Order: sequence, then C-alpha cells, then structure tokens
Amino acid sequence: MALRARALYDFNSENQGELSVKENEILTLYSEQDIEGWLEGSNGRGERGLVPASYVEILKNDAPSTANNNSCSTSGQSRYANVLTGGFENFSKPAAPSFGTSSAPLPQQHPQGYKQHSQGSDDDWDDDWDDNSTVAEEPGSAGGRYNDFEGNGPSTYTVSTSTASRGNAQQARSSATVGRNLNRFSTFVKSGGEAFVLGEASGFVKDGDKICVVMGQYGPEWQENPYPFTCTIDDPTKQTKFKGMKSYISYKLTPTHTQTQVNRRYKHFDWLYARLVEKFPVISVPHLPEKQATGRFEEDFISKRRKGLIWWMNHMISHPVLARCDVFQHFLTCSSTDEKAWKQGKRKAEKDELVGANFFLTISTPPTPLDFQEVESKIDGFKTFTKRMDDSSLQLNATVNEFARKQITGFKKEYQKVGMSFKFLSQAFEMDQQVYSSGLNQAISFTGDTYEAIGEYFSEQPSKDLDPIMDLLALYQGHLANFPDIIHVQKGALTKVKESQKHVEEGKMDRTQAGGINDRCNIISCATLAEIQHFHQIRVRDFKAQMQHHLQQQISFFQKITGKLEEALQKYDNA
Amino acid sequence: MALRARALYDFNSENQGELSVKENEILTLYSEQDIEGWLEGSNGRGERGLVPASYVEILKNDAPSTANNNSCSTSGQSRYANVLTGGFENFSKPAAPSFGTSSAPLPQQHPQGYKQHSQGSDDDWDDDWDDNSTVAEEPGSAGGRYNDFEGNGPSTYTVSTSTASRGNAQQARSSATVGRNLNRFSTFVKSGGEAFVLGEASGFVKDGDKICVVMGQYGPEWQENPYPFTCTIDDPTKQTKFKGMKSYISYKLTPTHTQTQVNRRYKHFDWLYARLVEKFPVISVPHLPEKQATGRFEEDFISKRRKGLIWWMNHMISHPVLARCDVFQHFLTCSSTDEKAWKQGKRKAEKDELVGANFFLTISTPPTPLDFQEVESKIDGFKTFTKRMDDSSLQLNATVNEFARKQITGFKKEYQKVGMSFKFLSQAFEMDQQVYSSGLNQAISFTGDTYEAIGEYFSEQPSKDLDPIMDLLALYQGHLANFPDIIHVQKGALTKVKESQKHVEEGKMDRTQAGGINDRCNIISCATLAEIQHFHQIRVRDFKAQMQHHLQQQISFFQKITGKLEEALQKYDNA
Repeated sequence: MALRARALYDFNSENQGELSVKENEILTLYSEQDIEGWLEGSNGRGERGLVPASYVEILKNDAPSTANNNSCSTSGQSRYANVLTGGFENFSKPAAPSFGTSSAPLPQQHPQGYKQHSQGSDDDWDDDWDDNSTVAEEPGSAGGRYNDFEGNGPSTYTVSTSTASRGNAQQARSSATVGRNLNRFSTFVKSGGEAFVLGEASGFVKDGDKICVVMGQYGPEWQENPYPFTCTIDDPTKQTKFKGMKSYISYKLTPTHTQTQVNRRYKHFDWLYARLVEKFPVISVPHLPEKQATGRFEEDFISKRRKGLIWWMNHMISHPVLARCDVFQHFLTCSSTDEKAWKQGKRKAEKDELVGANFFLTISTPPTPLDFQEVESKIDGFKTFTKRMDDSSLQLNATVNEFARKQITGFKKEYQKVGMSFKFLSQAFEMDQQVYSSGLNQAISFTGDTYEAIGEYFSEQPSKDLDPIMDLLALYQGHLANFPDIIHVQKGALTKVKESQKHVEEGKMDRTQAGGINDRCNIISCATLAEIQHFHQIRVRDFKAQMQHHLQQQISFFQKITGKLEEALQKYDNA
Repeated sequence: MALRARALYDFNSENQGELSVKENEILTLYSEQDIEGWLEGSNGRGERGLVPASYVEILKNDAPSTANNNSCSTSGQSRYANVLTGGFENFSKPAAPSFGTSSAPLPQQHPQGYKQHSQGSDDDWDDDWDDNSTVAEEPGSAGGRYNDFEGNGPSTYTVSTSTASRGNAQQARSSATVGRNLNRFSTFVKSGGEAFVLGEASGFVKDGDKICVVMGQYGPEWQENPYPFTCTIDDPTKQTKFKGMKSYISYKLTPTHTQTQVNRRYKHFDWLYARLVEKFPVISVPHLPEKQATGRFEEDFISKRRKGLIWWMNHMISHPVLARCDVFQHFLTCSSTDEKAWKQGKRKAEKDELVGANFFLTISTPPTPLDFQEVESKIDGFKTFTKRMDDSSLQLNATVNEFARKQITGFKKEYQKVGMSFKFLSQAFEMDQQVYSSGLNQAISFTGDTYEAIGEYFSEQPSKDLDPIMDLLALYQGHLANFPDIIHVQKGALTKVKESQKHVEEGKMDRTQAGGINDRCNIISCATLAEIQHFHQIRVRDFKAQMQHHLQQQISFFQKITGKLEEALQKYDNA
C-alpha cells in the first residue's frame, strides 16, 4: 500500500540523504514508522530521501492529520506534537530533528525561555528518542535567579535549565478558588506549594513512598539513604542509527547496587531531569552539563560532558531523596535492550501522582514542630549565604578561567620564548670550534628544551587542576540558581500561615483550618531546611575534596618542573 | 688676604648652599683650594655660597687667569681645564661639578662622543677627585660596533665607554710620513697598531714589563698569571664631603693578595678604565657598569652597580695581562688614606710610555711565527662567531628582560587574583554558621594566602635568577663591542704585510724592512689570538656558572612554591 503524506512546510535539504519539499507537496512514504524523527520517502519527481516527520502530514483513510499539531497529549503518536505546547504561542513551525552534526531546520521563532535553554541546534535536544516524548515540558520561561525573590541583582549568567515548569499538572488539577495567589507564574503556585498549604493536595501515599525528615545535630535533615551506592559513567561511544546517517553518543552507566551496565544518551538524562524537577518542589535537582549546539562529537566536548555527567551523577546519588526515587532507579537499572520495560517505567514516571503539591504528602516530619521564627531567620541567613557564595563563585570562576587562559597562552609563550632564546644562544656558541665548549653548548641547548617543555606543562596543567574547579563551580551555580525558587516556596507557605492567623483573629477562619495550614507549612519548612542542610554538607565535602585535588595537582606540577630543571642542571656537571 | 675671582659665565644656583653669579661679577673667595670642584665665596651683596671652580677666574697678582681655558696641560692647576680639550671645539662653557644628586650646570653643547658616553648629569663623571684629572681623555667618538668593520649591521645598543681615544699620545709622537693610513680615525691608526707595524714605536721595556704569549693547546694564549688573586667589593657606603653637601658612594675593595681594604669611588674605576683602554690596543677591557644620570643614591641602583663592578672586577682579575698591569695594581693596593702615594701612582700611569703602539713592544711571542693565512681564517671565524653571539645575546637579553617583567607584573597578578578569589570564597563560606565548615573555610583562606605568596615569589624571583643573566650578557655585550676594533687592528697589520710584500716585489722596499713588518704583524696576531682564546675561556666558564646558578635558583624557587602548596594542602587534613 502506497502511503502518502503532504508537506506542511517548506523543507530545504541541508545534508546528503535529505529530501527538499515544498509546502503542500505530496510525498510517497516507505513506512509510517519514522526513525529518529525522520521519514523516508520520495517526491513526484522520483527523488528519494529523508524528511522531518514533523514537516509532513500522513494521509490516511482513518486519520487524515496526526503527524503534527497535537497538543497536550502525553501519549500521542506524533513525536514533535508536544514541541508546540507549553505556552509557546509564537511557534509557527515545528522543530525538525537535527541530522548528524548538521544544523537542523529549527522553528523560525523561539520564545524567550526556549532560547535561554538551548542555543542553536542540538540533536540531543531536538531529537526524539521514543514515543511519548515530553521534551516540550522542559523548556519554558525560567525565572531570573535573584529576580523573583527580593529582586536584588539580575541574573549574571545563563540559567541552563529551567525549573519553572514544575507542577504544571498539579496546577491543572487544583480546584481551589479562595485564598489563592493571583500570580499564576509564582514559583509558590507553580511548584504546587500553595495548593499543598491550602490543603488542596491529595493522593495515595504508600509506605514505600514515605520520605522522612529527621531531627539531626544541626536541625532537620533528610534521613540517610540506608542503601548507598555509586555509579560509574564510562566510555562514551559514538553510535549510529538509520543507515549510519544519524549519530549519537551513548554513555555506559554501571550502578554499584546492580553491577549491571546500562547505556544512556544525554536526552535520557534530560528526560529524567525534567521528571525530577517536576516531582520535587523543594529539592535542588543538580543541573545537567550544558547543551552545546555544535561539535557534539568532538573529543573535548564528549570528555567535558562526561565529566559533567559524572559530577551530576555524584550529586544525584549523594542525595538521600533523589538517589532513592523510582524514576532515577528506573533510569539506572532498566535494561537498555528491554524496550518494553523502559517504556513501562517511563509511562509510570510520567503519570506519577506524587509530584509537586502531592510530593509534600509523602514527607514525614520530626514529632516536634519547628519554630517558624527560627526557620525564617535560618532561611534568611541562607539567602544571604547563597548570594555571597554566588558572587564569589562567579568571581572565582572568572579568575580561574582567565588564569587557565593565561597559562595556556601567556605563560606557555614566555617559557617557550626563553627556551628558544637559550637554544639560539647555544646555536651561536656552536659557531665556536673550541672543543672545550661543546659540553656547555649541549647543556644550554638542553636547557632551552627544558624551558619549552615547561611552557608545555603550563599549557597542559589547567585541564588537570583548574577545569575541575570550574566544573565544580558550574554545578554549584546550578544549585544556587535553584534555591531562590525553593526559598520562595517556603516563604509563600509562611505567608499563608500569617494570613491564616490574621483570618482567625478576624474570625474569618476556624482554628482547625489554620492549624492545618500551620502543619503543612511545617512540612514544607522541614523539607526546605533538610535540603539546605544537605546542600551545606555536600558543599563542604565537594569543596574540600576539590581544593585538595587542586593542590595535589599543583604540587605534582611544580615537582615535575623541578625535576625537569634538575635534569637540565645535571647536564652542566661535565660541561 | 682677600682672594678675588671673576665669574666667567652666568651660574644659577640650583641647590641650597650654591651661589648664583653673573658673568664678570667679582667674588671674594675664602680659599684658593677648591673642594670637589667647588669654591666657597661671597658676592658684592654679601651672599655666601659655593660656585663651580671652573666658572670663575681667580684674580692673582702673578697669574691673572688660571682657572680655566687651559688646554693640553697634564699638570695644570685647574680641575676642569682638560674638559675643554680632546677635540671638543664646540664647547662654549665648561662643566661644573655636580652637587649631591642635583643636576649640575653642564656645558651647553656636548659633542657626539660625550653624549654617547654619559647621558645627563652624573657627579661620578663630572666631578673631579684630585689634581690632574684626565677625564677629558676618556670620551671621544666611539666607533659603532660592527659599523667600522664590514659595515654589517649598525650598533643596536649604546656603547657606554669609548675605545676611540686610544693612543692619542702615540699618534702625536709618530713621525712617519710614508705608507700611513690617511684615515686618522681608523682604529688601526688610533690604537697605535699602524705605528707599531711600521716600526715607529719605540720605548724602553723592562723585564717586568714583558708580556708573554705562549703556544697553548688551542693556539696562542696569554701566559697565565702565576700569582692569581681575587678581590671582593663590599658595602658601598654613602660618604659626604664638604660640610655634608656633597655625597658620593664608596666601595670597599679587598684584594686577596694584600688582604688590605681600599676605598674606591666609581670615578676611580672610570679613570682606571680609561688608562687600560689607552694602554692595551688588542685587549678587550671589560666595560664598567653603565652610568646613571639620576637616582645614584637609590638602593637599587647602588646594589646594581655594585654587582656590575663585581662582574667587572672578576673579568679584570681573570685576565692574565690586565690583572698584573701596574695601573690596576696601583688601583687595588694603594692606601685610600695615602694621598701622596695615590697621586704618584696616578701620574706614573698617566705618563706610562708603554701604551698603544709601544704596548706591542712588551709582547714576546712563541718561537715559531704564525701562519698568517691560518690566522686570517681564525679571525674571520671569530668575527662570524661574535656576530652570532651578539645577535643571540641581544635576543636572550630582550627575552629575559620581558620574562622578568612578566613575572613581576602578569604572573604575580594572576596568582594573586586567584589567591584573592579563594579568599573571597572563604569569606562567603564563613557566612554559613555550620560548625563543620569552619575548618574548610580556614583552609581555603590559607590557600588564598598561599597563592598571594606565590605571586610574591614570582615577582621576587627575577632579581635572583634573571638579573644575573642580564648582568652577564651586559658584560659580554661590552666585550663583543670591543672586538671589532681589536680585529680591525690585526686586519690593518695584515694589510700592511700584504702591501709590503707587494712593495718588495715592485722593488720599492727591501726585504729586511718587509721582514720587520712581518715580525711585528706576527706580534699583533699572537696578541689578538691570545685575547680571543682568553675570551672563549672566560665565556665558557662564565656561561656555565651562570646557567648553573640560574637553574639552581629556579629549582629552589619551584621547591619553595611546592613547599608552600604542601603547607596549604595539610590545612585540609582536619577540615
């Protein structure tokens, strides 16, 4: 049966194997099943090639138009349907999957939030990976870092991943009409924090879903993970699909608790990240390493992304709540070859009820309620702290970045210029025919080589001891970007408590209702303080380890230089 | 008796204690004896102060005008008489002694050579130091480095001390009229080389004056000094004279063969240098460290000059001929307090007959005469060598200078910026009240201090291991500047040999006369090759030692950094 499709937009082939089409052109498809977002077909002139599935409408008897423009469907057949959802009203054209490393035909108009998320083409971003892609939920308008709490200081660097889409589902489910915040874009509202505080959240919480906040030495903290594990990320390999014309990088993950390797692509991480952000309103989900538009298959980029993913993984498994959550476990343990199991787990995660407002239902708190004044003071202190840490991280990052650049360029050049001058001198000295000077000439020449080598050492060093610092700072800058929203949720809850107290005083609310708000604010506060405590603990752990690593590397570096110079010095012994 | 004087020029007081005078103004002097070139007196208005002795004419019954304008007198009473001699026809006004660190009233027009010698005011230069100053003989037009032999490449740095005035006396004595070079400014002529080759030199040579060139392993060489010694230069101290208004720096010299300390000023070195240059036509007299117009009493300059003088002394005592010569021995051993002995030795040196052309009379050569073709080839090779060495020294000097500058500025700044950023981070971390992070905060703060210290180390290092290289190069650049003249003398002699052979062939000269020219060219060639050999030996010795010193210092430097980093690393042990 000849399967036909109509082009919805003009598409200009930019790579071998692609087929240019005009709007309304009729194509013959070889299969209804696309591969990686591409359909293979031919046009009326008999030219054959690939077209983006999202650019065509398959002409069927029973379903004349399913290839695009579906919206809000979490189980639709079309891959890029959701690209058009999420409030991107300006979209005039869907995104086509990118093709190899080439730039893909992107939608012509990107809303702000999208641009902020990903610059240019990235097939990890645009590309689909199986049915029911929900990538469209990830972007959206990201709140400025410090803009939406107290407005002190605009964001000074690009927020690579938005947290703003949290709890869209919950928002939709909510039916409350009184006492609600009018600002639908407030994190407090979007995260589901408001709905929860107002008692509008409801869900069935199993014992296994329970998340405990316990009272620790320094205040509320997440109960430790009783089954700690680690996970290695090895050997990113380039894989090809679809007649070798589509490539992607696959990472090998081996969690210690299963000892079974699974293969994951960046977009799997990305999907997981979106689930986590949606599920946990007051947990700082570590940001993924930044996307990159071009050069995705370059060694440097692959190595850098792998390091970023290792850092990310490290923070995931360190977190008592994140490490244990179902969707992460599914990601870590589901066999790469069992597609059915993967899809099951994926659907389950996407249908999870205990996200956003309902997440708070899973939290059990220490028996004694917190003193809200004390909580407020702690939170305010933390806010000041994060501001300072953010400033100093930015400064350190800029300094370290510049220092690395100087070592790679200036320092290297200076040492190598000295090396060359010594060599030049030794060459001049060789013009002298005196037997007794040949030893000296060789020694000076060797000294010249030594300085050139030292210059090389300087240029190689930053990747060993400065890049890791920048990686660390990038991860923490992600956390610091998360906290304003987290704090905002807690602040919002506290405001509701104060309002309810006022309402009680004015006789507009009964004490039981106000008590419920109080209890629920206590839950949010416990979770927030536990998250802050966790942040401090990993911060101290990570910065200590990284500073030690840095200093050890620096020591080795200077010892290596010293060794090289000692070698040169010895050459003069018999000169 | 009231001693009167008439001002010969306007003099404007520029320092406290000086007295401004107008031309023809009559002054009353307190003493006919000047102190350091200054006379104390008062004017008609009763104002009292110092005037430059050279600006006034003492009005005596028996000698109405002796204070200036004497010329060519080697024993005149006036200190600055000789400043006007030496072909400086443009002089309209004599130099006044400088006064303290102030700029002295210099003559209004300086001939080229003078300017080349000393830029601006320098009391070591202008100042007198006892009777019979012969400073005027030192300047003169210095030949460009490579300009006057083959003209390949102009001089690229200022020649600080001229060699051009060599043998003026001998030139005057010469009475030859045939076969003479018409170019009176040729080094060959001026050095006395020509006069000697033509058999015009004559003098009484005592056994003690004999200088032996022996045949060594690598060709002719100076006979070693059988009584080697060294000489330390310690504690330059600022001394004052003349009611504390005149200051100068005195260096303490202690030669090992006398173990008696003598005090010498820079101008004593300068006087000695002039004697040596005059006396030895084919010996490369090490250049003195450069004069400096301002800041002569600044610590840095004093320390730098002392180091330069130590290098200079080292080369003087290393030279078998220079180390033993009378004027140097007089300089090293004459008691600083025995003024009479000093003056005697000084006069003797200035009246030395065995200078220039006559110096060659003192040389005894190995029994077998040299093969002039071989000599020519050796000299040509050396010429090429010096050119290459000069180029590479200049390049090395520029590189090392820039490297030093970068370490003092850029390297220091980079490390200190990193240090400050770490400190800034630790300060941000201190905002956190967590007990468990205080150890880390302190450790990071200490790391910040460490980086600031490393920055400091970088800025301090060049004075330890790069400055000495530059000092070495400066000294050798001096030698390299000397050799063109030395080679020129030998080349000139060889040309005379060729001419005489032609004359013999043409029957214009008898064989005996030509034989004499041949023998005398052999003497010059032996001396030249001996000097070249000496140059290579000290070059290998000096560069080896300096490279070793440099590397040792660099090793210590990097070890110091490593040690500091290890200290910082330890701070994290209990963090």
